[in-house]
Amino acid sequence: MAEAGIPERGFPEAEFQVRTSRAQALMAEQGLAALLLTTEPEVRYFTGYLTQFWQSPTRPWFLVLPASGKPIAVIPTIGAECMGRTWVEDIRTWSSPNPDDEGLSLLADCLREVAGEGSARIGLPMGPETHLRMPLADYARLLESLPGKEMTDASAIVRALRMVKSEREIAKIAHVCGLVSGVFESLPDILSPGMSEVEIFRTFKRECLARGVDDVSYLVGGAGQGGYGDIISPPGERKVGAGDILILDTGCLFDGYFCDFDRNYAFLEAAPEVERAYEVVFEATEAGLAAAKAGATCRDLFQAMNGVMESAYPSGEGEGNQVGRLGHGLGMQLTEWPSNTAWDETELKPGMVMTLEPGLTFAPGKVMVHEENLVIREEGPQLLTRRAPPRLPVIS
Amino acid sequence: MAEAGIPERGFPEAEFQVRTSRAQALMAEQGLAALLLTTEPEVRYFTGYLTQFWQSPTRPWFLVLPASGKPIAVIPTIGAECMGRTWVEDIRTWSSPNPDDEGLSLLADCLREVAGEGSARIGLPMGPETHLRMPLADYARLLESLPGKEMTDASAIVRALRMVKSEREIAKIAHVCGLVSGVFESLPDILSPGMSEVEIFRTFKRECLARGVDDVSYLVGGAGQGGYGDIISPPGERKVGAGDILILDTGCLFDGYFCDFDRNYAFLEAAPEVERAYEVVFEATEAGLAAAKAGATCRDLFQAMNGVMESAYPSGEGEGNQVGRLGHGLGMQLTEWPSNTAWDETELKPGMVMTLEPGLTFAPGKVMVHEENLVIREEGPQLLTRRAPPRLPVIS
Repeated sequence: MAEAGIPERGFPEAEFQVRTSRAQALMAEQGLAALLLTTEPEVRYFTGYLTQFWQSPTRPWFLVLPASGKPIAVIPTIGAECMGRTWVEDIRTWSSPNPDDEGLSLLADCLREVAGEGSARIGLPMGPETHLRMPLADYARLLESLPGKEMTDASAIVRALRMVKSEREIAKIAHVCGLVSGVFESLPDILSPGMSEVEIFRTFKRECLARGVDDVSYLVGGAGQGGYGDIISPPGERKVGAGDILILDTGCLFDGYFCDFDRNYAFLEAAPEVERAYEVVFEATEAGLAAAKAGATCRDLFQAMNGVMESAYPSGEGEGNQVGRLGHGLGMQLTEWPSNTAWDETELKPGMVMTLEPGLTFAPGKVMVHEENLVIREEGPQLLTRRAPPRLPVIS
Repeated sequence: MAEAGIPERGFPEAEFQVRTSRAQALMAEQGLAALLLTTEPEVRYFTGYLTQFWQSPTRPWFLVLPASGKPIAVIPTIGAECMGRTWVEDIRTWSSPNPDDEGLSLLADCLREVAGEGSARIGLPMGPETHLRMPLADYARLLESLPGKEMTDASAIVRALRMVKSEREIAKIAHVCGLVSGVFESLPDILSPGMSEVEIFRTFKRECLARGVDDVSYLVGGAGQGGYGDIISPPGERKVGAGDILILDTGCLFDGYFCDFDRNYAFLEAAPEVERAYEVVFEATEAGLAAAKAGATCRDLFQAMNGVMESAYPSGEGEGNQVGRLGHGLGMQLTEWPSNTAWDETELKPGMVMTLEPGLTFAPGKVMVHEENLVIREEGPQLLTRRAPPRLPVIS
């Protein structure tokens, strides 16, 4: 602990060794000579390389995991110093941007060196929730320069590893969940009718920073008379007043790890139908918590939560249809695999960090969404957020 | 103006009509039956669709530009309400996540409808600084389901349009540049020796929010004794003291548009070699400003700035070698095309918003980087940031 109650930043080298050797064991099962990674969470997962510089789309970044040994970074020179502070030893750089050869020859050489000159299979995440962060034309050129090499989907390797968090990862998520729980609890004291959505969002962000989050990366929601209809929009200039229902859904960061949860508030008064929707969704979350046991599946979580909502609103349009799921994995990204849906049979394992996010449409164009974060433990779920109040809080 | 001095949020429909018809004129030149876009800035550029929800990697989003008429959105149901408030009329949705068919059949139908059943060319950004934001395996399945359709690189279309900003876009960038200039000018009053980098970053972010930025999306830099060596790292817990040199480089947002500039400070005292480096890089920026005329090229900007630095440090390792360029385009992304390099011959045109970012290595492991934002006008450059002071400011 760097300060009382604050988890230490970064990870010891042993953590990256474990991650890498687990990946290499799965690579061996799939007969992969190398794993090629191009996206921020994957590069960070195996190296600890943490920088907001990924927001610049100019430069690609490559990480090559050989069948054994440490990962090899093939990156723009501008990242050499920052990568040099990680456990990675083999750092190969080119002066970027360079559209004529944006790291391609360096990367191809590295892959040939690692996978051999003959035919070999190289893994790359190609499946759901992944993308390739390099220009498509460069990827085609890379393939041409690697005759005999077959690129194959390695999403399952990355997913299997990242879904189960270490205690150090859980501590970072728990820390940011705790800080933001405090912010949400303080909102009735710092928000008031007459503020605009823009002002509410700004106030929330400043309070989060004051309490110690690194960044308020994600904040969406808004207020609507008698309920809100949309949970992914930016704030507007409209001032909130009596009968407005506010939702704030936030992904704040500590040391590169997210929380992702929401809270609802009424201004001055709430219609009975809103209060009822709040209580039903609260009960759905309770049912989700009761079902969140190691060995159960994401489908079980979905059915537990959805069952409560369908009983209460038998003819209602389930919010599950709009959002597409009732929660998801959480960690280095705001949302991660798996999904709490009727079709996701992923088994819950100790160390998995999940959101429970039941929601429903209680009137035309009016939705109610709750969200909590938890970690699966041998003995049951451990809440990382402090539970939302059982009755809709009113701000006056 | 929504409030005095604050640009109105969003854009009138006419702006999206102009963007779309310009793209369609370029599509006609290239013989493209449709343009397929998958990334946040591109979708937003043609629709106005603004949400932080893109931070969730789970769901792909598709926008199809036909040869004529409005763009067509093929998106997850969760985005229907927010997209419904844009000028787009044809919004096709699927309940996502759905790994069995993550929008693919809907997208393929749309492309066949727009491009015809026979052979046709469909444009997709494939070139430098772009990527495809959908799973690679799904892209392969899409291609298989569209026999006769040829995917071709349409980066040049998107780049040509987005590089030249409208007055409304410039107003948003100018607004956030002005707000953040004020924050940087206030830092000597609100920072002090003994603060940690983490505290400095947090203080800076809260001040930006207090003054009206929507988000401090990007903040990197840090402090080092006698100079810093790295400009893309997150802050550490080390407390700054006498002789520390601090750089803060930030991309703040207003209504989805970025500033991107930095400022340098000394704590209590600065070594003469640091003061000299500061002044040389200041002069390099002046040379860049003098060269930033419509009709000149990015290469001219590079050479003007690099010339000043090479004269002052003839045997020094130019920072240009590490960063790879001395500035870049700026707008909906923290960095955009073009690049101020020796090889980029992009002609500067009125309406282009650029950063000038000269930097050099003045001692082993010690760099000095300045950055300003400007817009090219017929009559010369117009600074959007308020100019850095000509001498290194000292915080005591």
